[in-house]
Amino acid sequence: MPDAHQNAANETPRASTVAWSADGHAIRIIDQTLLPEREVVLELYELDSVIEAIRMLRVRGAPAIGVAAAMGIVVALSHASNGDHSVARGSLGQFADRLVASRPTAVNLAWAINRVVRVANAASDSTMLDAMRQEAQAIHDEDVAMCARIGEAGLHLIRDGARVLTHCNAGALATAGIGTALAPLYLAHNAGRQFKVFADETRPLRQGARLTAWELSRAGIDVTVLPDSAAASLLRSGNIDVVIVGADRIARNGDVANKVGTYSVALAARAHNVPLYVAAPISTFDFETESGEHIEIEQRAPAELHPLPAHVGVYNPAFDVTPHSLIAGYITDRGLLQLPFDADALRSSRP
Amino acid sequence: MPDAHQNAANETPRASTVAWSADGHAIRIIDQTLLPEREVVLELYELDSVIEAIRMLRVRGAPAIGVAAAMGIVVALSHASNGDHSVARGSLGQFADRLVASRPTAVNLAWAINRVVRVANAASDSTMLDAMRQEAQAIHDEDVAMCARIGEAGLHLIRDGARVLTHCNAGALATAGIGTALAPLYLAHNAGRQFKVFADETRPLRQGARLTAWELSRAGIDVTVLPDSAAASLLRSGNIDVVIVGADRIARNGDVANKVGTYSVALAARAHNVPLYVAAPISTFDFETESGEHIEIEQRAPAELHPLPAHVGVYNPAFDVTPHSLIAGYITDRGLLQLPFDADALRSSRP
Repeated sequence: MPDAHQNAANETPRASTVAWSADGHAIRIIDQTLLPEREVVLELYELDSVIEAIRMLRVRGAPAIGVAAAMGIVVALSHASNGDHSVARGSLGQFADRLVASRPTAVNLAWAINRVVRVANAASDSTMLDAMRQEAQAIHDEDVAMCARIGEAGLHLIRDGARVLTHCNAGALATAGIGTALAPLYLAHNAGRQFKVFADETRPLRQGARLTAWELSRAGIDVTVLPDSAAASLLRSGNIDVVIVGADRIARNGDVANKVGTYSVALAARAHNVPLYVAAPISTFDFETESGEHIEIEQRAPAELHPLPAHVGVYNPAFDVTPHSLIAGYITDRGLLQLPFDADALRSSRP
Repeated sequence: MPDAHQNAANETPRASTVAWSADGHAIRIIDQTLLPEREVVLELYELDSVIEAIRMLRVRGAPAIGVAAAMGIVVALSHASNGDHSVARGSLGQFADRLVASRPTAVNLAWAINRVVRVANAASDSTMLDAMRQEAQAIHDEDVAMCARIGEAGLHLIRDGARVLTHCNAGALATAGIGTALAPLYLAHNAGRQFKVFADETRPLRQGARLTAWELSRAGIDVTVLPDSAAASLLRSGNIDVVIVGADRIARNGDVANKVGTYSVALAARAHNVPLYVAAPISTFDFETESGEHIEIEQRAPAELHPLPAHVGVYNPAFDVTPHSLIAGYITDRGLLQLPFDADALRSSRP
């Protein structure tokens, strides 16, 4: 593990969404379920803890989940094997399967785990964990670079005076870097542009109100929170110039699975001729899935909508699907893409 | 005050949204801000308490606000004048103005207050309060009858097996009777039909999750709560046959101001060819307002969206406007109406 990363984690532990612990035996994450009231950094080194953190959204956002899972499987195998190479090798498949199953919609999770498993399979028993750690570090570093490239690809959309609507949190807290949907905003802010951001609250877990508002306001960016249900009338009022959202999975035809409510915002944006862009790394594109109809949508816990009266059902999908017809473009680490995607070229660009 | 109403209030104090107290010196309301966890009945007899209850949504829903304001001004004037007829007469204008200003978008509030003021102006000082009380009682009783007629006008929309989406609470808790948007559901349930209701949570005050789910489940009706942001994907899934919502104000051209998020649901319903009906009494129609653009929209308190990070703005409109083009019909106490409205005929039907 590079020393530079130990130091970075020590200097700014709160700002780092996913990092190695100082001794490298654990991963550190900021517990996003406690923001904005409390800034608590967790050190995780057991498989169950990593899975629990992913499932409970202590770490969330497709890219951050991928980074956390790749780094997490390394520390979990190290801890479980306690220096016994054959135990680590023997646990690899089960650990990988359990991690992949913890958030089935997040394609980055399976993608990142597959990368470290492939490296593990090519390594000898004695070098397996070191090789996996290097690959996980590479995934982390690529994520930082990916965010910067997404920011550059979308920077022209954030003009001086722009009013930008976003949903959920596809920001620094969702990645190891400066985010996906929020990356163009950070670069525009660094470039001295003045603009306003409107952040949907994003029920039930309020990632927009808690996380997007927190990280943007900390950066000195003007941010206003609204209930999800007010986005349509805000768009109707003419006070939004552009919508930028993230993605959890993008099908080959451009349909996008993202946090529930994205589809609703997309319908309203179209009704008022406001362009909606989806920002995501190429790793979020799933060219094996033909269209949004084939994307599995998780149902989340009914308790997220409590308190409720007795004897009441709950419909609480994690994601919805926005059809490609409502999307103006895809802000990616390979530039601003339009349909149809050149799947072969884009696929070959992946590590 | 009729004895029948005293008895009704005593027998079922919790079920009554607005009623006179046993001695007639106060109005009783169930504090809707505490539902579903606590069922607390408040007795209000001072102007400030009535205004506070309306402003804080302890009593809410356009018809219920009208009834509460009409009954509330009677008890408030009685209390403030303490038997001095000239004091009651002298306070009338100021009390009426303050009540009307407490919820500017709710047209029923001004309409109900105007009714009791008109009666007061026609009465002698010594009979003024009794005349106002009779008029307030008439408004209450007409509201009960109005709900029943709305239920009959919409009953055919709730077929056996129907799946119905609603937003906010336009139910028994929003009226003195069985509600507006929910009235057809109560009548269909009484008729033995089986159906499912999906209730949007309705952030920020969660009237759908707390109130609609509470009153429907108490009545034995199958109800499922969803985040507002999930309504669009639920409609897309093909699992909704009809949407019924209430209204706070309906302009002459059929545009509807209703709880924020209604417009968003209407856009999604249209996208998936699900008919959306607006249920409201004729008193909610404001034929003096040409279109939705002219309806004033209240901004509610930022605190309703807390907790939030520091230095974050809040956009929290109480209502939005759904254009008439997205509305399949208007379920009213004068039957199921279509555009264009015969404003003169409908206006003349008002008391």
